[in-house]
Amino acid sequence: IFLVLQVISIKDNDSLAARLAVEMKADLLILLSDVEGLYNSPPGTNDAKLIDIFYSGDQQSITYGTKSRVGIGGMEAKVKAALWALQGGTSVVIANGTNPKITGQVITDIVEGKKVGTFFSEVKPAGPSVEEQTEMARNSGRILASLHPDQRSEIICHLAELLTERKNEILAANKMDMKMAVSAGRLPSAMLKRLSLSSVKLSSLAVGLHQIAKAAQDSVGRVVRRTRVAPSLELEQVTVPIGVLLVIFEARPDCLPQTCFSVSALAIASGNALLLKGGKEAANTNRVLHQLTQEALSLHGVREAVQMVNTHEEVEDLCRLDKVIDLIVPRGSSQLVRDIQRAAKGIPVLGHSEGICHVYVDADADVDKVIKIVRDSKCDYPAACNSMETLLIHREILRTPMFDKIIEMLRIEQVKIHSGPRFASYLTFSPSEASSLRTEYSDLECCLEVVDGVEEAVEHIHKYGSSHTDVIVTENKETAERFLQQLDSACVFWNASSRFADGYRFGLGAEVGISTARIHARGPVGLEGLLTTKWVLRGDGHTVADFSESGSRKYLHENIPVEQNLTGHRDSN
Amino acid sequence: IFLVLQVISIKDNDSLAARLAVEMKADLLILLSDVEGLYNSPPGTNDAKLIDIFYSGDQQSITYGTKSRVGIGGMEAKVKAALWALQGGTSVVIANGTNPKITGQVITDIVEGKKVGTFFSEVKPAGPSVEEQTEMARNSGRILASLHPDQRSEIICHLAELLTERKNEILAANKMDMKMAVSAGRLPSAMLKRLSLSSVKLSSLAVGLHQIAKAAQDSVGRVVRRTRVAPSLELEQVTVPIGVLLVIFEARPDCLPQTCFSVSALAIASGNALLLKGGKEAANTNRVLHQLTQEALSLHGVREAVQMVNTHEEVEDLCRLDKVIDLIVPRGSSQLVRDIQRAAKGIPVLGHSEGICHVYVDADADVDKVIKIVRDSKCDYPAACNSMETLLIHREILRTPMFDKIIEMLRIEQVKIHSGPRFASYLTFSPSEASSLRTEYSDLECCLEVVDGVEEAVEHIHKYGSSHTDVIVTENKETAERFLQQLDSACVFWNASSRFADGYRFGLGAEVGISTARIHARGPVGLEGLLTTKWVLRGDGHTVADFSESGSRKYLHENIPVEQNLTGHRDSN
Repeated sequence: IFLVLQVISIKDNDSLAARLAVEMKADLLILLSDVEGLYNSPPGTNDAKLIDIFYSGDQQSITYGTKSRVGIGGMEAKVKAALWALQGGTSVVIANGTNPKITGQVITDIVEGKKVGTFFSEVKPAGPSVEEQTEMARNSGRILASLHPDQRSEIICHLAELLTERKNEILAANKMDMKMAVSAGRLPSAMLKRLSLSSVKLSSLAVGLHQIAKAAQDSVGRVVRRTRVAPSLELEQVTVPIGVLLVIFEARPDCLPQTCFSVSALAIASGNALLLKGGKEAANTNRVLHQLTQEALSLHGVREAVQMVNTHEEVEDLCRLDKVIDLIVPRGSSQLVRDIQRAAKGIPVLGHSEGICHVYVDADADVDKVIKIVRDSKCDYPAACNSMETLLIHREILRTPMFDKIIEMLRIEQVKIHSGPRFASYLTFSPSEASSLRTEYSDLECCLEVVDGVEEAVEHIHKYGSSHTDVIVTENKETAERFLQQLDSACVFWNASSRFADGYRFGLGAEVGISTARIHARGPVGLEGLLTTKWVLRGDGHTVADFSESGSRKYLHENIPVEQNLTGHRDSN
Repeated sequence: IFLVLQVISIKDNDSLAARLAVEMKADLLILLSDVEGLYNSPPGTNDAKLIDIFYSGDQQSITYGTKSRVGIGGMEAKVKAALWALQGGTSVVIANGTNPKITGQVITDIVEGKKVGTFFSEVKPAGPSVEEQTEMARNSGRILASLHPDQRSEIICHLAELLTERKNEILAANKMDMKMAVSAGRLPSAMLKRLSLSSVKLSSLAVGLHQIAKAAQDSVGRVVRRTRVAPSLELEQVTVPIGVLLVIFEARPDCLPQTCFSVSALAIASGNALLLKGGKEAANTNRVLHQLTQEALSLHGVREAVQMVNTHEEVEDLCRLDKVIDLIVPRGSSQLVRDIQRAAKGIPVLGHSEGICHVYVDADADVDKVIKIVRDSKCDYPAACNSMETLLIHREILRTPMFDKIIEMLRIEQVKIHSGPRFASYLTFSPSEASSLRTEYSDLECCLEVVDGVEEAVEHIHKYGSSHTDVIVTENKETAERFLQQLDSACVFWNASSRFADGYRFGLGAEVGISTARIHARGPVGLEGLLTTKWVLRGDGHTVADFSESGSRKYLHENIPVEQNLTGHRDSN
């Protein structure tokens, strides 16, 4: 049972509602007001913040304003009534009920346990809330950003050392995760293998960290542009961290604790604060790795810059923190990415929801390269986002020995073929027709379709692809360049496997993900993709009025060569 | 009167509903189904697209699938019923009614005329729909993007020539706009002056276009990074256009036809397709300027790459085109930007909703510079987003001659002062207290607050600022560098007016806007901000399997110096 009361204009309706709810032994009392819920100071004033959960001991942290326009009593009376109901065993939510169109949705959302309005609770949970964690991360992150690049490097090197020093601790935690995964029996064996850590894996992880530490020395504070605007007026464009990142790892298919860990290192190297939501399967390993990260960060007093968010936090609730999170990077299934893109109101999301990669085999292709590239693109790791989903072949190849060799290879590799409508029309007996030409099989399956040439291949990929990675195999340089130039994908390859679309293989060091977005960073995103810029102008009392038509000065706009001078104070901490 | 019918399991409920609606002379019949509306081919199949408006002659453009899971008759029966009702004088909407939580909202949205489901209409309006315009822009834009940089330059130069050749036509259209604005009497005289064009303004606009034409030669196709991944395997990162831009000019405060026009030139220079929604006040001028743009684009067969969107299109409906628009740039009031940020589900928005700029006067400031900079920052053009809203002064300056001079200057310039709480506490009689320290006055008003030093100034700005542009005035280099380094704003200035935050003044040529977003482009955004990159890999049959632990190859990852070779085929058109 729960009871919903609209605020009505009778005196002390709030306590009446509370008494009634307790009397009825209602589980939940929803008080609908004309504001979103309880704020720590009167809504609309400076810094007024909506309180998600109000604990019965929190009264002193609230400043009340004048009473609400709706009803009598205002927020103070509501809180009093809510606390009274709470003592009587009824939970309370205060939420906004003034929009008749969505009031019904507000109520169902509350009943479903979503974060709406202010929830009143008796028991204060241990540990900080996500909001508090984000606040800590931002504050600590600002100090991290103002450190000297060498200091960020030192933190990451220390992290690498801790991997060796505390190996036993890490491996023990990993063993626990493995044991739980095995007993739960939900992970396929290939996944289990990826989840498990070993001394060798930790050593290669440490090597990777040292590479990131080196890259960190030339990232934040790099001058990318210098202009002499006028005498004594110099403009610089300087790289700076983006701010607070939220990286969400879904348990599957990417539950690797080491990936989670190198993302932390990339964030530190780029001076960004990080909220990390790891996959449940690696919870113990991640917890230990995060302890080590905070230990390393303490070296320069920025322990809280990387925060581990509890796995039971709803993704939707995290995405609500649009005032404080600057970029979300989801790593997981297409569904996760789509959910986050939908939920992330106003926060940019860097990533890709689908990887529908194509290999186009041109009439002028070399048969050996075709076999090698198609096999590698499809079979090296079929679940990866950069594996081939559709094989496009030039019409002239049909019924040639090359075509037979491709089919033979796919048969040997046990790749199931789905035929596109045009391919099917050429055959007497065709394989099952593809239900859609826009399918991400993520398995040993692919679609096979016929096109008339490179122009039609480009058209097909624009229509059905996901702008991730697409490949042409041909010996004709002109055809290849046409494909590379006209195709509008993040990665376009000539005579190379689609599987090369990867930050490590590109030479970017680690990657936080692969982006199919069209702004900021595209394709594999490494350290540079986690930076933005700011403009620094140094003058001597300059005003724009001096440069107006009637003014005495003229703009110079001279480019000044950029030296690699990094800003940041060694002593700022 | 309108009638809502849920699909129920009786035979031919659709025609029953239609007959009933016509019999009752209902204005509107809403048919709620289990799909979003009418698609041009069965939903879920390749390319199935929701039809927003279905005209009675459009039947042949639809392919029906098997019938709906709900009810009998399926979509074909619904369409038949809808057309029957339409003939009888009742409008029809087919929409999704399967989500009980939002069905109520769906109905009210339909009644309010929002684009939900498929609307059936007798009369086909003249001209293409926004969807059709977007499609045309994208297709034409892909050709524009693949032109040689010189060809894009030629288009812009031709545009500049047309400004002179067709001057009379432009000025006549502008006179019509001026006349309507004067007779409507809604524009203040300063705004009228900005709206009006003259031969001189057109000449200086032509000069600006030639600058953009020059910059266009070194934009798209620039190689920004080259890596030798392995022998014969070379990776390039190349600049490419973002895709389709939507730039929305609100009538006020930025209704300048010339700004609208240089944004078109920037889009062409960067190879982007553009949808332009101009302000109503400049409708006639913009129409002529747009005709000239299309004429110039015709030079290389890309006439449709820049489209003018009708002013009566709802911003919300434009933002729904998330599959086809890659970036939205709103130019107008804070409210417009906020509305768009809310509406733009999944489409990145580049811009700023607020410009709360600060000038901090340090204890070591030079009095002459202070007076010049504060006056220019506040009074040069108070409505601009880069004008000062809050003046922060060091505590030690209070009750000094410098302080008196500042106040005297503000008095002479008729700037109304609002006091911050701390400033007020020092005075016996203070000016009216600022209602919020986060106010954008956009007028001859500002807030004055006291801080203890640079650290507190930075803290204040982080708390109440909008990360747009902030200034320190001091003679102390160390204090200045601390401010420039620690402050997290798009533009940070030392001893220079906040009004310098502008693409032209920065030497970027024209600007599409100023961004306070933290990714992609920050601060004034010119040509470079309209580009993204793609990765081009050229190999010789390379597979990642060759580079695995058991493989025969090793990654090189050598940086190759970047020459300024531009891609794009002179003959590709």
